[in-house]
Amino acid sequence: MKILVINAGSSSLKYQLYDMSNESVLAKGRVERIGMDSSILVHQPKNGEEVSQVSEILEHTTAIRKVLKILTHKEHGVIESTQEIEAVGHRVVHGGESFKGSVVVDQEVKTKIRRLFALAPLHNPAAMLGIEAAEKNMPGVPQVVVFDTAFHQTMSEKAYLYPIPKVLYKKHHVRRYGAHGTSHEYVSRIAADFLKRPVEELKMITCHIGNGASLAAIQNGISVDTSMGLTPLEGLMMGTRSGDIDPAIVPYVMNKEELTINEVDSMLNKHSGLLAISGISSDMREITEGMIAGYPNATLAFEMYEYRLRKYIGSYAAAMNGVDVIVFTAGVGENSIILRERVLTNLTYLGVELDKEANSVISGEPRRISAPNSKVEVLVVPTNEELVIARDTHRLVQNLIRNV
Amino acid sequence: MKILVINAGSSSLKYQLYDMSNESVLAKGRVERIGMDSSILVHQPKNGEEVSQVSEILEHTTAIRKVLKILTHKEHGVIESTQEIEAVGHRVVHGGESFKGSVVVDQEVKTKIRRLFALAPLHNPAAMLGIEAAEKNMPGVPQVVVFDTAFHQTMSEKAYLYPIPKVLYKKHHVRRYGAHGTSHEYVSRIAADFLKRPVEELKMITCHIGNGASLAAIQNGISVDTSMGLTPLEGLMMGTRSGDIDPAIVPYVMNKEELTINEVDSMLNKHSGLLAISGISSDMREITEGMIAGYPNATLAFEMYEYRLRKYIGSYAAAMNGVDVIVFTAGVGENSIILRERVLTNLTYLGVELDKEANSVISGEPRRISAPNSKVEVLVVPTNEELVIARDTHRLVQNLIRNV
Repeated sequence: MKILVINAGSSSLKYQLYDMSNESVLAKGRVERIGMDSSILVHQPKNGEEVSQVSEILEHTTAIRKVLKILTHKEHGVIESTQEIEAVGHRVVHGGESFKGSVVVDQEVKTKIRRLFALAPLHNPAAMLGIEAAEKNMPGVPQVVVFDTAFHQTMSEKAYLYPIPKVLYKKHHVRRYGAHGTSHEYVSRIAADFLKRPVEELKMITCHIGNGASLAAIQNGISVDTSMGLTPLEGLMMGTRSGDIDPAIVPYVMNKEELTINEVDSMLNKHSGLLAISGISSDMREITEGMIAGYPNATLAFEMYEYRLRKYIGSYAAAMNGVDVIVFTAGVGENSIILRERVLTNLTYLGVELDKEANSVISGEPRRISAPNSKVEVLVVPTNEELVIARDTHRLVQNLIRNV
Repeated sequence: MKILVINAGSSSLKYQLYDMSNESVLAKGRVERIGMDSSILVHQPKNGEEVSQVSEILEHTTAIRKVLKILTHKEHGVIESTQEIEAVGHRVVHGGESFKGSVVVDQEVKTKIRRLFALAPLHNPAAMLGIEAAEKNMPGVPQVVVFDTAFHQTMSEKAYLYPIPKVLYKKHHVRRYGAHGTSHEYVSRIAADFLKRPVEELKMITCHIGNGASLAAIQNGISVDTSMGLTPLEGLMMGTRSGDIDPAIVPYVMNKEELTINEVDSMLNKHSGLLAISGISSDMREITEGMIAGYPNATLAFEMYEYRLRKYIGSYAAAMNGVDVIVFTAGVGENSIILRERVLTNLTYLGVELDKEANSVISGEPRRISAPNSKVEVLVVPTNEELVIARDTHRLVQNLIRNV
């Protein structure tokens, strides 16, 4: 079965075409600048060269039409006909409390996703554009939605509620939802397989650290806590997001600087984090280079980032009364040797012992970076959210076929 | 030397008269409802009965005059003449970055405290009223100010800076200051003495848990991190304060409920925490009773409170790469047997072993509640912020006399 995986943003759309017979990616690419001047489609077939096309792409339906066209293109295509695509899987950021797992799209599902627009005003409407564009271009082909929040729906009340007036939960659904659920679930399963231990018997902390970053405490295979909250602002210091701060800073700064609600929101989401402290970049690679070059603000940004990440690992160890496995994943988690080293050499009190040589290997495979006698297993596991979406889509569509 | 310790709020004033020859409290009391109808003075002499006086007290100068009057009262008094009071010590909540320790009040000190009004708009102006009222009533008597923030001025940049635009620190002094510094310092010293170990060699976590609550990570005797931030809102869940939440909740709720800056601030400071979740009380004693009586919201409030406290202990263990001593203090910390039990029995991964019997003893003395073979020493140490203020005042005034 061939499955198209779509991750739609408000002005962009990423795609991967999977052949589920061997879980291989036949092609992947992205459309950027949808609705703007000189939109661009970048397409990468499995064994071919990357192709770029600049044209006018005013909305998502056209974007998907262009994607389908290039997927079936004589030279750059990887399939004969769009008929070969038997299902489409969509990434949706926010499933609220309505979705505890992936589902096949129908009218009711779309209504529920629309109801969640308020909770993810930037992301969910974009995902809906992607779903409807796919429906228009491929009528009759089943669409599946996979939610970033679903894996964390197992959290208990004490972990997901905030100590604020309950009316805010009842009326406005203010609670912790988390994000990166597909990634946290995926790497926790790969880690358990790697260790040849049942995930149901492990206390794990998974660190998904990319431009956005979140931790999950995973006990007996289920998410018991996660650092992102109502929105992806809470938790770790990130590329441009502050993560946790004194919430009183928000009204204080609004007052002092006469900021509007949108301005303070934008300040904390887009102009904070590594970028604000270093003054040079939101990218950990450039921060690390700056630090090595002796630039004090880069060093400070790195130290704050590491310190805040380490404290979260400590807090989740306390949340579960211990930790058996720590997993690093995503851009920074998979690639920053120095970040992992600084974090782990300061967690010896947990019994963590780093294998520095193993930590400096770069590889796209799951691997152990703790020493053989470390009391806590530490792994690097490359994440693959698209594969999770493809697998969920595959499973649900097979069920659908069976039930017909 | 006899020292009057004053803790002035905007409409209240607490006092204790110390005899520093043996650090005994000769009398203590409070004035309430200053500037309102039927103000009340409650006075408790050392070996006498509590006395209450209702009268009109329109401002702090009158309040202190009444206090001095009752301290020298024929029947209820404890001294012959106010001349016996050789110094006054004041609690001041916010010392900003200007004060790293206690100081004798002069014009410059007063100017600096006034400049900090913006950072503690409810507390510092009240403290200033207390200082000026004491000066008027006792001209020529040295006044000393002791700051809640001073002990935490040893934090490093990575702990005190927030990952937000730096201009907010430079222009508006937005950083972590913490609070309860006198208490954290005091109990850490008592704990080290109790253990007969030098405080300079210990990694300690001090938990000051009262109606307001904060933790400090104390390494080598100095504060390296603390949970309260720019304001006393950050950190632990408290009686009526939320503690940490997704900062994006502030703009989100302002938007949804059309709240003003002051309203959202008040919501998070006065209508959140235990009170919001339990729906019955901000007082841990009543929450515990509710939980024992099987009231689900009280149980939930307790569980959230415990869970958030435990996660902070875990994060500070990670901050210091280990912990040798955990200290509980203040109202809840000293008296809630069940809270300590729930926290500590879920920290066995740190090597904490609770002595349940020792934990259930009620006493006003420093005591160990960990088992003899616990890898982490756990103590309950009654705090005494007034004694710290009296001692600092005594020390500084003696220096003053020596230098004359």
